[in-house]
Amino acid sequence: MKEWSLISCQGPGKMQLGLSVSDSDVSSFTPLVVLELADDTKAEAITWLLNRIRDKQKNGGAELLVDQLLFPAQDGQKSNPNVFVVGSTLQRLLKGAEDVGLFKEFQDGIMRGFTYANRESFKDFYGDGEGFLSDAECQYIIKHELDTLRAKNEEHVPGYPKVKLYPGKSVVRRLQSKGVLVQYFPLHNKEDLKRLSFSWYKKIKLSFQPLDDIRHYFGEGLALYFGFLEYFTFALVPMALIGIPYYLFDWEDYDKYVLFAVFNLVWSTVFLEVWKRCSATFAYGWGTLSRKKAFEEPRAGFHGALGFNPITGREEPVYPSSKRQLRIYLVSVPFVLLCLYLSFYVMMVYFDMENWAISVYNENPNFGTGILLFVPSIIYAVVIEIMNLLYRYAAEFLTNWENHRLESSFQNHLVLKVLVFNFVNCFASLFYIAFVMQDMVLLRQSLATLLITSQILNQVMEAFLPYWLQRRRNKKVHKRMRRVMGDKELPLLEQVQLETEMNTYLGTFDDYLEQFLLFGYVSLFSCVYPLAAVLVVLNNITEVYSDAFKMCHVFKRPFSEPAANIGVWQLAFETMSIIAVVTNCALIGLSSQVKAYFPESETQMILIVVAIEHVLLAFKFILAFVIPDVPKDIQVKLAKLEFDSLEALKKRKILEAAET
Amino acid sequence: MKEWSLISCQGPGKMQLGLSVSDSDVSSFTPLVVLELADDTKAEAITWLLNRIRDKQKNGGAELLVDQLLFPAQDGQKSNPNVFVVGSTLQRLLKGAEDVGLFKEFQDGIMRGFTYANRESFKDFYGDGEGFLSDAECQYIIKHELDTLRAKNEEHVPGYPKVKLYPGKSVVRRLQSKGVLVQYFPLHNKEDLKRLSFSWYKKIKLSFQPLDDIRHYFGEGLALYFGFLEYFTFALVPMALIGIPYYLFDWEDYDKYVLFAVFNLVWSTVFLEVWKRCSATFAYGWGTLSRKKAFEEPRAGFHGALGFNPITGREEPVYPSSKRQLRIYLVSVPFVLLCLYLSFYVMMVYFDMENWAISVYNENPNFGTGILLFVPSIIYAVVIEIMNLLYRYAAEFLTNWENHRLESSFQNHLVLKVLVFNFVNCFASLFYIAFVMQDMVLLRQSLATLLITSQILNQVMEAFLPYWLQRRRNKKVHKRMRRVMGDKELPLLEQVQLETEMNTYLGTFDDYLEQFLLFGYVSLFSCVYPLAAVLVVLNNITEVYSDAFKMCHVFKRPFSEPAANIGVWQLAFETMSIIAVVTNCALIGLSSQVKAYFPESETQMILIVVAIEHVLLAFKFILAFVIPDVPKDIQVKLAKLEFDSLEALKKRKILEAAET
Repeated sequence: MKEWSLISCQGPGKMQLGLSVSDSDVSSFTPLVVLELADDTKAEAITWLLNRIRDKQKNGGAELLVDQLLFPAQDGQKSNPNVFVVGSTLQRLLKGAEDVGLFKEFQDGIMRGFTYANRESFKDFYGDGEGFLSDAECQYIIKHELDTLRAKNEEHVPGYPKVKLYPGKSVVRRLQSKGVLVQYFPLHNKEDLKRLSFSWYKKIKLSFQPLDDIRHYFGEGLALYFGFLEYFTFALVPMALIGIPYYLFDWEDYDKYVLFAVFNLVWSTVFLEVWKRCSATFAYGWGTLSRKKAFEEPRAGFHGALGFNPITGREEPVYPSSKRQLRIYLVSVPFVLLCLYLSFYVMMVYFDMENWAISVYNENPNFGTGILLFVPSIIYAVVIEIMNLLYRYAAEFLTNWENHRLESSFQNHLVLKVLVFNFVNCFASLFYIAFVMQDMVLLRQSLATLLITSQILNQVMEAFLPYWLQRRRNKKVHKRMRRVMGDKELPLLEQVQLETEMNTYLGTFDDYLEQFLLFGYVSLFSCVYPLAAVLVVLNNITEVYSDAFKMCHVFKRPFSEPAANIGVWQLAFETMSIIAVVTNCALIGLSSQVKAYFPESETQMILIVVAIEHVLLAFKFILAFVIPDVPKDIQVKLAKLEFDSLEALKKRKILEAAET
Repeated sequence: MKEWSLISCQGPGKMQLGLSVSDSDVSSFTPLVVLELADDTKAEAITWLLNRIRDKQKNGGAELLVDQLLFPAQDGQKSNPNVFVVGSTLQRLLKGAEDVGLFKEFQDGIMRGFTYANRESFKDFYGDGEGFLSDAECQYIIKHELDTLRAKNEEHVPGYPKVKLYPGKSVVRRLQSKGVLVQYFPLHNKEDLKRLSFSWYKKIKLSFQPLDDIRHYFGEGLALYFGFLEYFTFALVPMALIGIPYYLFDWEDYDKYVLFAVFNLVWSTVFLEVWKRCSATFAYGWGTLSRKKAFEEPRAGFHGALGFNPITGREEPVYPSSKRQLRIYLVSVPFVLLCLYLSFYVMMVYFDMENWAISVYNENPNFGTGILLFVPSIIYAVVIEIMNLLYRYAAEFLTNWENHRLESSFQNHLVLKVLVFNFVNCFASLFYIAFVMQDMVLLRQSLATLLITSQILNQVMEAFLPYWLQRRRNKKVHKRMRRVMGDKELPLLEQVQLETEMNTYLGTFDDYLEQFLLFGYVSLFSCVYPLAAVLVVLNNITEVYSDAFKMCHVFKRPFSEPAANIGVWQLAFETMSIIAVVTNCALIGLSSQVKAYFPESETQMILIVVAIEHVLLAFKFILAFVIPDVPKDIQVKLAKLEFDSLEALKKRKILEAAET
């Protein structure tokens, strides 16, 4: 942990970036977060907002430092004048760390809730606490303070009589949902970024990712994703190694496939269970495991008639749950079903194309028509990706329209919609080939084409295309700035200009989704195509690099998101591994070799396969139940934390009793 | 809730019982708990213990009231002189209520942690708080205070140099494990008991049980059991009603059985899920849902070499987990397997007897040999019960010997051992008949005999036999006391004498186990014997009465046990309902009627049955996932509680910040 004190969160006036600007309006604190208001925002609203941000906490302000950035006019086109940078004093940040409930390592090696009063007793706290908080933590604290800046007795935003405010509700969310606040995002720290990208992906080496560094720079949510990506890839290596000889030696014996499938199933259960332990270990070390969730505020986009919140007792927009249910069941569900139908229709078209290609090849078998055989699969794979993409937008629109009050509920409904469709869209054709057509050769070929095409498409879509667009934009901005400013060094202005125009990273959702589908390709039909694991391992090695690259250079820096586990994805992966048991057992039952073992009675064979399936499923559940989710040593540390707080409570009570 | 103020926890000097005694040593407080030390306990140990119990809290005492009961010599045989009654002042009890973390209804209708400082703001708190706590709560508080009476700097119990004490460890548990403290138990309150038993089981009527009264008298754990018993019985009524026509009209059509089985499976899932919501509602109203678990102390019987507890940092006996694992895997597991083998062996003997009986009947069919047909089943049912009983003792001994540190871990291992064996022991023969012999007529007959015999045996064993023994003992004590005391009224002495000799109620374990097995009889083979539900409903109606009776008059009053749910039994019942899906689908597949529908292809039939089974299982899981475990209104109340505590914390921090 020692090295962090060098990288993280420097005190005021320490960073090189931005402060050597000639413009008088750029002040003397480290800018951490950029706040962009609409360029036609009324002056009184701006003054009011800045005052609220700067005001003392006891007056209900955020007590942060904020300054305007004035960009020179460029090529006649005026740039937005309402861009602000926010920073903070170190003391304010440390107090904020207590507000957000950060957990830090205590002297005794146990993670404890940070309190400003006991700050000296925390490990790695030296002097006035410089370097104690990471950049990501500082930015997260500022975000939290801005988000919890609450309306007092203002009835509306000054200058905007229509933008009503309710006492105690978040000002920033209100401004955001009304379009006054365009965006706010954390700034990159060029020094740290350079160091991180070097240790992460610039040197080609066989080593683990610097997860602690990633967490320090991007926060726990992303670090956990990269941890999972790495873990998943390593977990696939044994399967890949076992899969290679099947391909090389052209093993077609089903007893070998049965062995492979059983190994695969047990392995996938164990690996998912062990991941829970790993993630608990990570989350404990990062202080997110024992951290309590803050009370969840309504989403920025949530709207409704004015009413009383039964929980807080405050006046706020209320939207009846029955209306939401109606929207879900009468619109969203039918829409999803329609999309599923469409997906089936496209699949049927694909089979027609496939048949046509085969008939062409059979009429005139040569190299050209041989290649033609692969064309339908490739087209289908591309169409699947496009449909997934379109559906993704539709699902987001619909879930937004369902008007969920909480972000978590919004996410759950979105994930469910997207997962169901993606699962069906990607795997329907494979299920059809496997269980209706029962054509194992076509299944293998289809699986390979789908897998490889979707991998290539994904890498292009999520990293290289954005990077290329980004670079074009960068060059333009750079040239424009140079032209205006001449040789004057304006790194901060240029950096803010550049980052404002970068795309926003939309969270780990798509990244997890991709891994989820890859896991499906590996596990669902593992016993007919053992090579899938090899392909996925190869893909994931490049995936680490392209994902790392896109985080560092393609997208805006995201705010850190505290995460104690991979959440709903754990459930999704576990469900997939259960479905995999069923499909693999069914595939084994279908194989002609297995049928040959039971020449006299097919019934007996089916009963045995079903019995094996049940035993495997029972075994899975027992295994999941028996393996503890949190490693013993961390259980002890958590218990110690709880014990200490109980003891402290008891002591306080006895003291109070003695006083009275 | 109003009526409670009448019943519960009277202040000092209010109860009639016990205080009109001529003996000078019986003092002027309400006796709540009886403490019995071994009759050869050294005087210095007694003096020391009483002093510790009476000492002020700030000196590390329990600050309770305690007095010795002196029984006159009876028939030359001296009774134990070391029997004590413990009571408390009202103020001490209220402070203790805060220590144990009792939740009570606040003015605003929300359950909040009781604090002595805010006592006036709780609903039903009038005057000095008389009647605010129920008897069961008072006794629970006294138990907690006695249990947490900790050693200070004493190295050993005075007079017993071998009974070592460690600073901070429970004195009472130490005395108990060394046999100095024989037992301690709460006294019955005759007035309340009369009222409770009248409203509970004395009047024959069609109404719900007085669960709130039961909870007030016996605590949450038992009330939850009776709530579950009632709920389970009501849930079976629809199945029983549907089952009756099958029996009356001798329906043998399998399509009807299929319908019944499907209804049964869906119903059992829904009923288990809805029970979670019911139990959450109960537990919320009783204040146990949001209550935090106290830090768990080691069991009284736990032993080991002296070491350091990594959690508390205190010196205490430590037993290596590896040794325990060895004992479990090298001794307990083989023992359980041996018992299972034995159970199978007995089953085979039963089948031999069955065959012999049939052959006798076939040789000479008359009334006598007709009855003989039922004898093997009845004998087998009795043997099963005896084996269950013997195994129960062995399992308890073994689990004790495994030396678990915590009561919860002990309970889990005990429950697992007992459940596995009981399941196999009770249902093995039925599985054998159903799936190996495939004899549905014998299955039906066997099921009925087993079910009825075990019900009769259970009722006799758990209520009537103990009651009969108890009555004999009561008469003896009564006669003895009369002889000695003449006409002097000594109700307290007699009551204590009587209750000391009553059997101890060993917790709800056996009661839940019985219901679990009944659930198995109903659900596992429901589609061949729909009448099972009727029998179980009838059994449970008498069960309510006999259980109520045994709690009130056969056993010592148990200490209240706070419980928020039925714990591991929820899991056990859910597992049973999953197994039931498999068995019922298999039974349907085996039936000749279903086979007749698919004359051309048995394979197809099996595949369809397997597919239906998978769909049902998936449906079960989705249903369990979709139905929220806690009703909406209670979720809101819990969220409000959490929100309030977060707000209070925030306010305190702002105040602190303003002060500095």
